[in-house]
Amino acid sequence: MKSALITDFYELTMMQGYFIKKHNPRVVFDVFYRNNPFNGGYTIFTGLEEVIDALEGFRFSDNDIEYLRNLNLFREDFLDYLSTYHFSGDLYAFEEGTPAFPGEPLVRIETNLMDAQLIESFILNQLNFQTLIATKACRMTYATKGKGSIMEFGLRRAQGEDGAHIASRASFIGGTKVTSNTYAGRKYNIPVAGTMAHSWIMSFDSEEEAFREFAEIYPDNAIFLIDTYDTLGSGIDAAIKVGLELKAKGKNMGVRIDSGDLSYLPRVIRDRLDQAGLDEATICVSNDLTEEIIQTLVSDGVPIDSWGIGTHLVTGGSQASLNGVYKLAAKEKDGVFEPTMKMSNSFEKTTNPGIKQVYRFYDASGNALADLIALNDEKIECGKAYTFYHPFSMADYFVMKPQNYHTIRPLLNLKMKDGKRVSQKRDIREIQNFVQVSLLQFHKSYKRQINPHIYKVSLSENLKELKLNLIKELKAEQNN
Amino acid sequence: MKSALITDFYELTMMQGYFIKKHNPRVVFDVFYRNNPFNGGYTIFTGLEEVIDALEGFRFSDNDIEYLRNLNLFREDFLDYLSTYHFSGDLYAFEEGTPAFPGEPLVRIETNLMDAQLIESFILNQLNFQTLIATKACRMTYATKGKGSIMEFGLRRAQGEDGAHIASRASFIGGTKVTSNTYAGRKYNIPVAGTMAHSWIMSFDSEEEAFREFAEIYPDNAIFLIDTYDTLGSGIDAAIKVGLELKAKGKNMGVRIDSGDLSYLPRVIRDRLDQAGLDEATICVSNDLTEEIIQTLVSDGVPIDSWGIGTHLVTGGSQASLNGVYKLAAKEKDGVFEPTMKMSNSFEKTTNPGIKQVYRFYDASGNALADLIALNDEKIECGKAYTFYHPFSMADYFVMKPQNYHTIRPLLNLKMKDGKRVSQKRDIREIQNFVQVSLLQFHKSYKRQINPHIYKVSLSENLKELKLNLIKELKAEQNN
Repeated sequence: MKSALITDFYELTMMQGYFIKKHNPRVVFDVFYRNNPFNGGYTIFTGLEEVIDALEGFRFSDNDIEYLRNLNLFREDFLDYLSTYHFSGDLYAFEEGTPAFPGEPLVRIETNLMDAQLIESFILNQLNFQTLIATKACRMTYATKGKGSIMEFGLRRAQGEDGAHIASRASFIGGTKVTSNTYAGRKYNIPVAGTMAHSWIMSFDSEEEAFREFAEIYPDNAIFLIDTYDTLGSGIDAAIKVGLELKAKGKNMGVRIDSGDLSYLPRVIRDRLDQAGLDEATICVSNDLTEEIIQTLVSDGVPIDSWGIGTHLVTGGSQASLNGVYKLAAKEKDGVFEPTMKMSNSFEKTTNPGIKQVYRFYDASGNALADLIALNDEKIECGKAYTFYHPFSMADYFVMKPQNYHTIRPLLNLKMKDGKRVSQKRDIREIQNFVQVSLLQFHKSYKRQINPHIYKVSLSENLKELKLNLIKELKAEQNN
Repeated sequence: MKSALITDFYELTMMQGYFIKKHNPRVVFDVFYRNNPFNGGYTIFTGLEEVIDALEGFRFSDNDIEYLRNLNLFREDFLDYLSTYHFSGDLYAFEEGTPAFPGEPLVRIETNLMDAQLIESFILNQLNFQTLIATKACRMTYATKGKGSIMEFGLRRAQGEDGAHIASRASFIGGTKVTSNTYAGRKYNIPVAGTMAHSWIMSFDSEEEAFREFAEIYPDNAIFLIDTYDTLGSGIDAAIKVGLELKAKGKNMGVRIDSGDLSYLPRVIRDRLDQAGLDEATICVSNDLTEEIIQTLVSDGVPIDSWGIGTHLVTGGSQASLNGVYKLAAKEKDGVFEPTMKMSNSFEKTTNPGIKQVYRFYDASGNALADLIALNDEKIECGKAYTFYHPFSMADYFVMKPQNYHTIRPLLNLKMKDGKRVSQKRDIREIQNFVQVSLLQFHKSYKRQINPHIYKVSLSENLKELKLNLIKELKAEQNN
């Protein structure tokens, strides 16, 4: 069970309003975001499996109801309704781990208005954060160019307990290999790992003693932290001494550097290790790493074998939130769905009306070419030409001819029917793998860390026409 | 109970190392941070009461032990030890809500090494985040200059569920008045509030109908969201129409603006409301507010009555993590505590050794003058002169003469003894009030949003000497 109190209070006051007014039509809501985070070219849609689990168990306990009753704002008949509440809607979504782009409906909820309103805050809380962090992890992994794996070390800098746990999950989906967070390791079946703290070393009389004691207990996992006192002095000296003892027993070792210049130190330490005959020894670096720093170190050829990353990975660092929103796209009137649209003085914030589907077009080699947002009742199929309209500058368009593409795939798939999961729950290893495979379908120009090529997400002819007509209608009403 | 698996994995491997080596001396650890967040002049130390609660119940369940067993890295005798583990140490801390500064030990833990190691990650996770957010809320509240209260609306943009809940708690402590997060409202006894969503308006046939239906149910809480279609057109027109109906019934109303220019729109809307005779109507603004934006709007005299803030408040925005650390300060050897110190190639990262206390000096009017970090066994008392040494540039100092100050207060107080709470748990209203009262003791120059005056935190003569001597010793050892 997940407490349905995890909702913005206005959802509850609006729900009671709908309840009293008996105003509870079927509706369609879209989840989408407006800008890629980190000045990047994409996001990795993440959090879906957990949202489905939570929605299946979204309930008000007796204590929850009692709390609401004591606020003296809710009627007894409404509280009765809440006490038997469960989510009963249909949910369509992108597969978790799909590369996604601004403006695309990533989740589409079809249910009654009260139901749809209640779940808004929770869905956004989960999808915004997990998508942000998986995207960050993906960017960091991409920056390594395969030179060394990333260890997620974020627990102590994360935003609360499950800020840490679900960041570990999302990081792993985005490409990190292990987590330091033991609880997240158990909960999500992620490999756990760690090295040693400065306190280990300081609790002994010397670094040499500290390393030797550690190596005796963990001869197969000896990564020595060498910057407690003097990295290039006592630290590396002791590591080499104990490393040679390990080597004599047929065991390998590594060192971790947690401060100082991460370009200079690994080179000097690599030389020292190699000269000592420890050329198999690995070098791990940590200390406020970002994807920009990783990229610089990798392109400079700094000898680094693994990266320990906390703060920027699990919080997003420079951008701590994804601006995903949940907007009404259609409502039932007299038995049929009517499209709805939020206007805005800024045209880019005017929503896309109607029940929609997203289609990804591929070439014969499986490369993604462009995405088309179309109305759900349009038939988008191979062999036809489609006009792709720019989502804001609608005078701008291009034509996708049948010879320009090979395959079309719809991205929104039915995941819940009448409030119940209808898709197989996927393991996070499967999702992690899906991310890597999916990203291979995108040209590297879309994956540049800064100033990437913009992947095209367009409106279909019918959707564009619907939007323009609705704008005309709404403007006409306003001028009456 | 709180799962003791919420720890970095290396804490457990190090613990097993200490266990096997029977190397478990009494130790003292300090929690401190190195830089004020947001380029500000202080932090609000927050999260303590929750840390104490959690430490009292920090346990490994049978499932936790089984998980660790299956990793095939831990011995049965160590797992047996873990299965009966509970925190047994003493904890000294600043009162929750105290203004705090870089380098000050905010929490001091005295216990055995294994115990101290296990709780590190959890303590930092909680204190880093809650202190960050309370500080942010305090800065935002300060920026309002008393012009309008802040409503925390962060759930949908927060980093996970309890990233949201504990952000609501910390925000409230920092000065916000209500939360939109219903669950946090119940859990922490914070007033809950909200207005209405665009979807409420879009679900009806017109804004006028939507506002009237809402006002009928909530005549005492009618805040109309006016930017769904056209803020200065249909939005404000409908709000005034329904507002006048409410006024005729003796009820007041308000409007919320969630997009567009937040300097221009409130002025025009204020005029429209006043001209219509609705001069009691309130104006609420929201949409990606930061303390810098609030400050600009307030100093420009924009007529705003309340602020709805989400993203930047509950995530920290520009800075998403506080860099608090947990460092070994002393360890027992042959029955006495010996000071320990982590050296660093950068002197500013060299830790302060020994068991310490922090003293705040006040003038006769109760204004805070400066803080002194001293050794715990020094007698710091009124009537004496003290030399305050700069923590890094130790050639720099000043003398606090008896006539320069009036009162001295120690800031670290005993909160847990042998693993049990020994202080009364404080209500968050009491803590919120304590923050405001405490901040009044600091000159406004320390509270400037940018480029604030640096509040002085110094080392005592004895602590400075100890540090210099330890540096000499360690450097001598390295050069042997």
